[in-house]
Amino acid sequence: MEGQVLQKSKLAKCAAAKLAILSTEVKNNALLSMAKSLREKREDILAANETDLINGRKQGLSQAMLERLLLDEQRIESMATGLEEVALLPDPIGSMTGVTCRPNGLQIGKMRVPLGVIGIIYESRPNVTVDAAALCLKSGNAVLLRGGSEAINSNIAIAQIIAQAAKNVGVPDGAIQLITTTEREAVEQMMTMNEYLDVLIPRGGAGLIQTVVKNATVPVIETGVGNCHLYVDSSANLEMAKKILINGKTQRPAVCNALETLLVHQDIAEEFLSIAAKALQDKNVEIRGCAKTREILSDVREAAEEDWAQEYLNLLIAVKVVENIEEALEHISCYGTGHSEVIITENYSHAHLFTSRIDAAAVYVNASSRFTDGSEFGLGAEIGISTQKMHARGPMGLEALTSNKYVIWGQGQIR
Amino acid sequence: MEGQVLQKSKLAKCAAAKLAILSTEVKNNALLSMAKSLREKREDILAANETDLINGRKQGLSQAMLERLLLDEQRIESMATGLEEVALLPDPIGSMTGVTCRPNGLQIGKMRVPLGVIGIIYESRPNVTVDAAALCLKSGNAVLLRGGSEAINSNIAIAQIIAQAAKNVGVPDGAIQLITTTEREAVEQMMTMNEYLDVLIPRGGAGLIQTVVKNATVPVIETGVGNCHLYVDSSANLEMAKKILINGKTQRPAVCNALETLLVHQDIAEEFLSIAAKALQDKNVEIRGCAKTREILSDVREAAEEDWAQEYLNLLIAVKVVENIEEALEHISCYGTGHSEVIITENYSHAHLFTSRIDAAAVYVNASSRFTDGSEFGLGAEIGISTQKMHARGPMGLEALTSNKYVIWGQGQIR
Repeated sequence: MEGQVLQKSKLAKCAAAKLAILSTEVKNNALLSMAKSLREKREDILAANETDLINGRKQGLSQAMLERLLLDEQRIESMATGLEEVALLPDPIGSMTGVTCRPNGLQIGKMRVPLGVIGIIYESRPNVTVDAAALCLKSGNAVLLRGGSEAINSNIAIAQIIAQAAKNVGVPDGAIQLITTTEREAVEQMMTMNEYLDVLIPRGGAGLIQTVVKNATVPVIETGVGNCHLYVDSSANLEMAKKILINGKTQRPAVCNALETLLVHQDIAEEFLSIAAKALQDKNVEIRGCAKTREILSDVREAAEEDWAQEYLNLLIAVKVVENIEEALEHISCYGTGHSEVIITENYSHAHLFTSRIDAAAVYVNASSRFTDGSEFGLGAEIGISTQKMHARGPMGLEALTSNKYVIWGQGQIR
Repeated sequence: MEGQVLQKSKLAKCAAAKLAILSTEVKNNALLSMAKSLREKREDILAANETDLINGRKQGLSQAMLERLLLDEQRIESMATGLEEVALLPDPIGSMTGVTCRPNGLQIGKMRVPLGVIGIIYESRPNVTVDAAALCLKSGNAVLLRGGSEAINSNIAIAQIIAQAAKNVGVPDGAIQLITTTEREAVEQMMTMNEYLDVLIPRGGAGLIQTVVKNATVPVIETGVGNCHLYVDSSANLEMAKKILINGKTQRPAVCNALETLLVHQDIAEEFLSIAAKALQDKNVEIRGCAKTREILSDVREAAEEDWAQEYLNLLIAVKVVENIEEALEHISCYGTGHSEVIITENYSHAHLFTSRIDAAAVYVNASSRFTDGSEFGLGAEIGISTQKMHARGPMGLEALTSNKYVIWGQGQIR
């Protein structure tokens, strides 16, 4: 096992040097060819996926996990379309910014370059294998993929198909590699392989992400946990607030940009909570409320301390009545995870205060937290949503997978 | 001891929230007031520094270390001037970039924000206390400083003076703090304080930096180690090459952007090495050469394998004759530390090949590696030179101490 991770990492590092200067044309050809190959060999993928599903049922995976694991014609088509979309995105590599001429005549600018070798550690969904490989390839990086053991057969089939398709049109060998052992030690090894890996991106549940953050010596980009708040100010348009609340909580409750807590200004609490409670009830959302909420909504269960901190990811919402915007800001600062935070207000100063004070990847005035997404933000595809402040924050597109180098043109200058 | 680091980290985190929205005016007033206070209280600083020097001599510190530790009127004046220069730099915080309007009417932009709390772990030079505090303050960050034990009295005096001066004009308490215990455990604690510290920047020798990189769970910005190469191509202007060689090797040999290895194309090796050897000799630089070098320069000592990997930081240089530019690129890829690399050439294609292939923070054509420096690059002051690819690469000015957040203005949009 040790052999495999080390060997693939070394090969990836060799590939990275060649990928860094690979032409956009070859990279795009490879993406299109990968899409074509996925479609042509879909039967192989479906057969491998069937094996994973059978094993999963034997091992008693939950229905939700089996659903995430499942591939069908439509999902394979959507992976292929995703590859074609990445081919259409502009190539970030080689572009230069900030070229200036210094007083001594030196011309200095920043050239965008790949990070090098990117390790992706992820769970169940096999489509991540394709998405991650596509974004890494387009940004000139080699990728070392490590998917969940429950999807191992699907991932092996997919990785083999796309890696071969890429290689056939001139992408260096080793550019796209999957770790095929399911032993946990493989992950531990990846986390400390500073010599070969430039960055690790964990994608999955909070447990996986925290394990990687706490144990990796390779730089990590932390993605995903979102305890997102909606604050309805005293001056809010309540009809708008209701729509954004229902959208944020119920359109797709299991994702990181879904709402988890509603904060309501006391002056409009009675009116708004009655409207909100009815709308939430219609969507089968259970409310956990603070004492003041329960004075207004008598049949609501009491929110415990842990409710404020929890990312429910399902049809539950914590509700708190606050005295003023200051209390809302403090609550968010205390319990928020720095993902997406929303204010609904018609008050100019409060909108300004909220956007300047909230410390999160995305801060919204009068719009749904559900927009925190690479394609909604206009970045094209995304590799994840960073909740850290270093390197990249918020939805990460191709640019988040790059670095830069200074290039300096002189005519013999010395100091 | 544990108490102190934890307590100061918590206070720093509180201060950071206030610093993030502190006006440029207050920050600049504070910087000017810190400068004034340093000048007024220079006797206190010199007295504390004298204690450190006495202790250092007792402990047998090397002459070089004592020299780095030494403060005098001029050095204090230069710290004060540094503060005034930072006050003149534009404030990066609050500026917005990339504001676009999405098809659904959402306006989305990136607002520049501070990182939060920055930990700086550094060695001997007490001026780092002032420089780091100034850059962190201007960029709206709280800073937790941990200097070397040999400079503890100087650092305590300086930190006390500047923190008080800042506080007097409205900077939140806890914005600038020094860890006053010299126990090693304090550093270990800082390295794992993910809840309170947003980033660690080690400044010092390779040993310190590697310790932090290997052991910290807090994100680290790696600075400094520079095994820099000068490649003299067959088409080089040899007079220019000589000047840049001497400047890179001898103008300030102890710094990270100084040259450590000279690579010479075989076609001009005989001519150039005779010129170079004489010029290096005049500056008392010892040469360690490869076999081919020693055929040309008979009295040169043989370079061992470790010479190619070493950052001498003094009057020594390793010299290798290469067959062609490919061999030069491979040598640099194998032994370089990704800091600064130089080609001297009149050949357009070789200049292009070198700038695209070399993977380093700064890549030069026909100019001295000594220019890799924040103020030479036009960034104003610098907090260090990053040799990593994540977040910041090359000289780091104020912008490297910031992150961003997406701000989204809507009119009720939902998905």
